[in-house]
Amino acid sequence: MFSIFPTKGTISDIDGFYCDGISAGLKPNNALDMGFIYTDSMCEVESIFTSNKFQAAPLKHYQLYDKNFKTNFVLINSKNANAMTGQAGIEDINEIFINLKEAHNDIENPIMSSTGVIGVRVPKEKILDGAKSFNLSNKSGENLSKAIMTTDSYSKSSFYEVKLEDNTTFKIGVVAKGAGMINPNLATMLCFICTDAAVPKADMKELLEQNTKTTFNAISVDGDTSTNDTVMLLSNGKSNTYNKDAFKEALRLVMDDMAMLMVADGEGAKKAVAFEVNGAKDNEEAELIAKCLSNSLLVKTALFGEDPNWGRIASTVGASGAMCSEESLTITFGNVLVYNKGEIYFTKEIEEKASKVLQQDKFKIICDLGLNDGSFTAYGCDLGYKYVEINADYRT
Amino acid sequence: MFSIFPTKGTISDIDGFYCDGISAGLKPNNALDMGFIYTDSMCEVESIFTSNKFQAAPLKHYQLYDKNFKTNFVLINSKNANAMTGQAGIEDINEIFINLKEAHNDIENPIMSSTGVIGVRVPKEKILDGAKSFNLSNKSGENLSKAIMTTDSYSKSSFYEVKLEDNTTFKIGVVAKGAGMINPNLATMLCFICTDAAVPKADMKELLEQNTKTTFNAISVDGDTSTNDTVMLLSNGKSNTYNKDAFKEALRLVMDDMAMLMVADGEGAKKAVAFEVNGAKDNEEAELIAKCLSNSLLVKTALFGEDPNWGRIASTVGASGAMCSEESLTITFGNVLVYNKGEIYFTKEIEEKASKVLQQDKFKIICDLGLNDGSFTAYGCDLGYKYVEINADYRT
Repeated sequence: MFSIFPTKGTISDIDGFYCDGISAGLKPNNALDMGFIYTDSMCEVESIFTSNKFQAAPLKHYQLYDKNFKTNFVLINSKNANAMTGQAGIEDINEIFINLKEAHNDIENPIMSSTGVIGVRVPKEKILDGAKSFNLSNKSGENLSKAIMTTDSYSKSSFYEVKLEDNTTFKIGVVAKGAGMINPNLATMLCFICTDAAVPKADMKELLEQNTKTTFNAISVDGDTSTNDTVMLLSNGKSNTYNKDAFKEALRLVMDDMAMLMVADGEGAKKAVAFEVNGAKDNEEAELIAKCLSNSLLVKTALFGEDPNWGRIASTVGASGAMCSEESLTITFGNVLVYNKGEIYFTKEIEEKASKVLQQDKFKIICDLGLNDGSFTAYGCDLGYKYVEINADYRT
Repeated sequence: MFSIFPTKGTISDIDGFYCDGISAGLKPNNALDMGFIYTDSMCEVESIFTSNKFQAAPLKHYQLYDKNFKTNFVLINSKNANAMTGQAGIEDINEIFINLKEAHNDIENPIMSSTGVIGVRVPKEKILDGAKSFNLSNKSGENLSKAIMTTDSYSKSSFYEVKLEDNTTFKIGVVAKGAGMINPNLATMLCFICTDAAVPKADMKELLEQNTKTTFNAISVDGDTSTNDTVMLLSNGKSNTYNKDAFKEALRLVMDDMAMLMVADGEGAKKAVAFEVNGAKDNEEAELIAKCLSNSLLVKTALFGEDPNWGRIASTVGASGAMCSEESLTITFGNVLVYNKGEIYFTKEIEEKASKVLQQDKFKIICDLGLNDGSFTAYGCDLGYKYVEINADYRT
């Protein structure tokens, strides 16, 4: 038995973790654009990176370290992704790190993480000047989470305390950025999870991967990710305590929190929608359907228009390639049944009730295939004018 | 040897074909919303239907006929798709046809084809009243092509005369609708191809399928189609002549014309873009990449913003799952090389040139993977505010 408490706090409220965000001149108007996570002892670290074949230079640099390397420093910048920059991009990181270690002697095996425009070399001088000015004893998770924002409209963090049966406790905190989930395609997501739980190295990757499937991968289509996507787990073990079930659940909570914040902050989005698929042939087909729904432009625009157009839901289910039948399918908006197994069912009265569901900020659309017990829930949002505005000229 | 001449004309300029469009009160303001194709002798017919598992009632009805059935009548309506209407939808068609044959005695094996809102029963009375008023000796391809429009901003047709080596000639004409190709997902496409060539039944399906791959399927993602998509070929054989190569090329031309008009008329689109992929591992991977590009929301919005953001192109290639390498990839906008095999290449001067390409109405984006000889060209368009406006409340 264990207890998990959501707590007001940030990653630097964990013993031994320090962080901050500064303005290095990458963003205009002195906005925060660079930050760090520093730990006063070496951390175990595990990461899940993008499945994009063109991994950005920071991801390649990370993978040059020995598999079991430990670190005490992560340097994070926004505005420049250092992606598609070839060998030069990696050399830029090496040069930055040489200078960084000169300025801050106790940094070991530093990691870089970047988000922003693709195909432009990082402004080394600005980054170095900024990094030299870091005060490693600062504890401002708020500044850090602001510094890593790109098209995010708010910063994203979450924090929990976990109490185990023997009354020992550990903490877990997270800062993240990501806001393009209106279309999961290419929306860079960075997520840094810090804990003082004494997580065995072997559990770190296993639990990260398990939880990614139902959190970040449920808001994103497999394989269709940005050059820079990163979920990183840093553990300094300072609590001297650990329980796998408790840690797994706490990790799921912080990752789920971030995934839901990213959906709700979909570029220009006003509605967070859970697409719950039940009764599919198997879980894989349920996942396929749920992701087709959360990804469909016509579904997204209907949600934006608050139009209870269940025909677009049905047609997307039919187009998904999954096994399905008109005679066993039901579609429910919130708790309003709108399509029932081939019946002509959609009266004016039902339409009015369904419209009210769609006027909410947050609701479920449930498709029951009526075939077997496969289920999956994907998360998406509406697509409106604001999305076009944000993305038509992102670089400027 | 044969010659193909594009000619001013419409399907009713082919011997034995009649057509018209009328207002049956399905659309508001007496707009044309229903039409027919009638032939004064029985036609061979072949069709390619949507791969959507939920085929609309007209498609199911068609498939109830004997495999080698001939027809002399196609009834086409817009505004109501007669999809997800179960057995009732098929019975509605049967009832319409019983009355139709009473009104026009020589109609045999009629076919229905519908486009519009999903999940609402067809207004039988309006359709029957309209169908009774048809004048089967009318020859107005223009009215027909207007009557089948939904979100199309212009009607679509094309016409060719073909002269064979022995100086015999045949004609081929087409009317089509389809305008959602900004996102191929669920955009209903109807295409009726008429000819007096004496096409052997066996060639009809084979040539339709071959040509679909490089035309309609190049503007659409496989399997991700509407409940009603139809490409229909009607041949009355009245020219008494035929040559397979000539007919294949003429068929390719009319289908290519329609596909390109649909891309250019993508809902709210201003730009028609060819995504040409060369040097891929094989043709299948080239097709995968080309379709990922033509489908990417971030690519589409960058095109709308006329932003030469080649990073989004590169990232989409990397995310496609196809084999690729930064060190062998080149990206070209029009004739302006913007990314060259891992070099940092994108100067201000190149950016200005690339911007000018993107300001055009029609251009190519070429990705050469530099791996092998796989190639494919997919067609897409930009996505702007107008798309959201059109699709946010399509039903009203």
